[in-house]
Amino acid sequence: VVGSHSTRPWPYRTPGIPDDLFERIPGIPMSPREVRLLILAQLRLLDDSLLWDIGAGTGTIPVEAGLLCPRARIVAVERDNEVADLIERNCQKFGVTGVTVQRGSAPECLGELDGNPDRICIEGGRSLSALVEAVWPRLVPGGRVVVATSTLEGLYRVAEQLAALQARQVEIVQSGFCRLERRGAQQGFTALDPTFVLGGQKH
Amino acid sequence: VVGSHSTRPWPYRTPGIPDDLFERIPGIPMSPREVRLLILAQLRLLDDSLLWDIGAGTGTIPVEAGLLCPRARIVAVERDNEVADLIERNCQKFGVTGVTVQRGSAPECLGELDGNPDRICIEGGRSLSALVEAVWPRLVPGGRVVVATSTLEGLYRVAEQLAALQARQVEIVQSGFCRLERRGAQQGFTALDPTFVLGGQKH
Amino acid sequence: VVGSHSTRPWPYRTPGIPDDLFERIPGIPMSPREVRLLILAQLRLLDDSLLWDIGAGTGTIPVEAGLLCPRARIVAVERDNEVADLIERNCQKFGVTGVTVQRGSAPECLGELDGNPDRICIEGGRSLSALVEAVWPRLVPGGRVVVATSTLEGLYRVAEQLAALQARQVEIVQSGFCRLERRGAQQGFTALDPTFVLGGQKH
Amino acid sequence: VVGSHSTRPWPYRTPGIPDDLFERIPGIPMSPREVRLLILAQLRLLDDSLLWDIGAGTGTIPVEAGLLCPRARIVAVERDNEVADLIERNCQKFGVTGVTVQRGSAPECLGELDGNPDRICIEGGRSLSALVEAVWPRLVPGGRVVVATSTLEGLYRVAEQLAALQARQVEIVQSGFCRLERRGAQQGFTALDPTFVLGGQKH
Repeated sequence: VVGSHSTRPWPYRTPGIPDDLFERIPGIPMSPREVRLLILAQLRLLDDSLLWDIGAGTGTIPVEAGLLCPRARIVAVERDNEVADLIERNCQKFGVTGVTVQRGSAPECLGELDGNPDRICIEGGRSLSALVEAVWPRLVPGGRVVVATSTLEGLYRVAEQLAALQARQVEIVQSGFCRLERRGAQQGFTALDPTFVLGGQKH
Repeated sequence: VVGSHSTRPWPYRTPGIPDDLFERIPGIPMSPREVRLLILAQLRLLDDSLLWDIGAGTGTIPVEAGLLCPRARIVAVERDNEVADLIERNCQKFGVTGVTVQRGSAPECLGELDGNPDRICIEGGRSLSALVEAVWPRLVPGGRVVVATSTLEGLYRVAEQLAALQARQVEIVQSGFCRLERRGAQQGFTALDPTFVLGGQKH
Repeated sequence: VVGSHSTRPWPYRTPGIPDDLFERIPGIPMSPREVRLLILAQLRLLDDSLLWDIGAGTGTIPVEAGLLCPRARIVAVERDNEVADLIERNCQKFGVTGVTVQRGSAPECLGELDGNPDRICIEGGRSLSALVEAVWPRLVPGGRVVVATSTLEGLYRVAEQLAALQARQVEIVQSGFCRLERRGAQQGFTALDPTFVLGGQKH
Repeated sequence: VVGSHSTRPWPYRTPGIPDDLFERIPGIPMSPREVRLLILAQLRLLDDSLLWDIGAGTGTIPVEAGLLCPRARIVAVERDNEVADLIERNCQKFGVTGVTVQRGSAPECLGELDGNPDRICIEGGRSLSALVEAVWPRLVPGGRVVVATSTLEGLYRVAEQLAALQARQVEIVQSGFCRLERRGAQQGFTALDPTFVLGGQKH
């Protein structure tokens, strides 16, 4: 049954690629699988979405989004050249072709991008709420922005920002997963540090 | 942009349908969105999977799986007629056509089912580990079984069962989400009760 | 062994009285046992502390503090007469004599209180950070303030406030307990909603 | 106010000593403060309790128990000589005098201990449920046993064991704390791995 799929590293239709299948660079952040699932769910991607992913890190969201929506256009914005290369390598590894890596610092470099996105994912940056404010005018009506953050300041200010922008259907979730891992003859729970995922929709 | 999609209740390519979009019957369990995401990720559905969903409850997994894999065949096993009707209504509501509802008690009724599944999801039942043992011979080689449970007994016994069956790539995750909800002028965190999601693959 | 202790409802030297031993009024908040333990730990009570407890609710902190420190003076500030009566009844029930209930609204009524506390516990109020600011001048040098809140706004603003006041030894903890409870023949985990406990010390 | 207390490292009446105040040996487990609070609460120590602490590790429970109950007798059972020395040093550091360290392996060495305890705390060991079974006959009627474990096997088997022993007032709690920690200009949440604390009382 699985024979024809076996040449691709992730032949499945469901998101949630195990963390260790991605190529990584030490110190470069990566959203763990369980957090990625929350981000993707809040993004509510359409078949033909134009997605900007800002602070893409390891590139896990572009990869998962590209696999779910092969016809979508995805722009990963990353200022660090080494990290930008990593994103490209991970897209190649998973056979994702719809991703363009924009090398530059957000929000300054966003003026160089063509088109207005209907989906924006913000996974990192110096000031998350400043980023939300900067990208909001580019978001098409009915479009969605999703922010993932592990800091209290990011959580509070983006929540305030979404309220100030009168975003609709605001959802804020705190993840708190534990993974059961083998420790000798027994199994113990390891907690993942919590991440907050915030999403909202433009009028 | 979203015009052509607007007639369908969930036009998106990403799973994670909000809980309140499903028709519900009071007292009938439903996997909340965040838990559904974990179940779907562990199922690793293929385009043409044959999925058995046992103890399907409200039918959220058949709906989400059917939207992600329109070509898959999904059999929802449910002994209660009223609940079986609910599953069918939820599939109709979301335009999912690949789902058959098998009315009967698992594991007894499984002998009536044609074909051998490559994916089995167990969301409920009197004895989860007995169910795992009963369905395992029907699972095709390389196929996967995923169990969701909120009980200590279910967690422990299914973990033991998967080890006894020499399942590969066993993953066990405890979910622990909080949702931020408005309380007057402020926002407070509401915790979802934890669920354990266990998955493993047959040799 | 336990005979001589048995006439007191909580003869133990350790805090953590089970929730259901307190008299309650529906709708009046109560810090659950696990959160109380965190509050008490951050308070670092001395044998002869003067503790103000603001927004005392059911009175669990005055009771536990009074049992741990029979020589301490404890002032529970509560504006609602019915709730103030409840606090007094719970103190009587547990044989705690060092508690005075001040009927009034904080921070306005605090001017009527004699002495300056070395410990302040804030469990509720219209604006937690305004309360922190109002009580801080009354706190003796080296004294500690501890705030418990379940809201994002409370968490963020009190954290900011403690930084602005240059509080030392600031500790901020999010609680996330689950209790295993019997459900028929099995046991399932019930999550308590998270509470944030913040503490800091004055120069 | 605090002058007369300042020569003692923990002059407070409340438990919950910060982790970094204890002397530690790398690799030797220590119950973090928040878990210690749960253990102490479930122990329900009396003024004159005889407490056995088995697998005491760093000695945090003997120290906290000794501070709360200066008249209690506490026996810390530890097979490793280096760890036994560590427990003694931590007791000296905090001025706790009621602790005896029994060097030996539980349950074998328990036969050498005089008296029957009314409180038993099990923080570690090869088989927690075997330890519970071995110590139960020594526990006085009305006495309590408390077990802390981070493993699924420990949780399940001790829960079964307490049921088989017909323990009363069984309480099982899963801890799930996050600590807010400074990361540059922001603050992020760090999750502690969960621990299960189980307690029960003998008829």
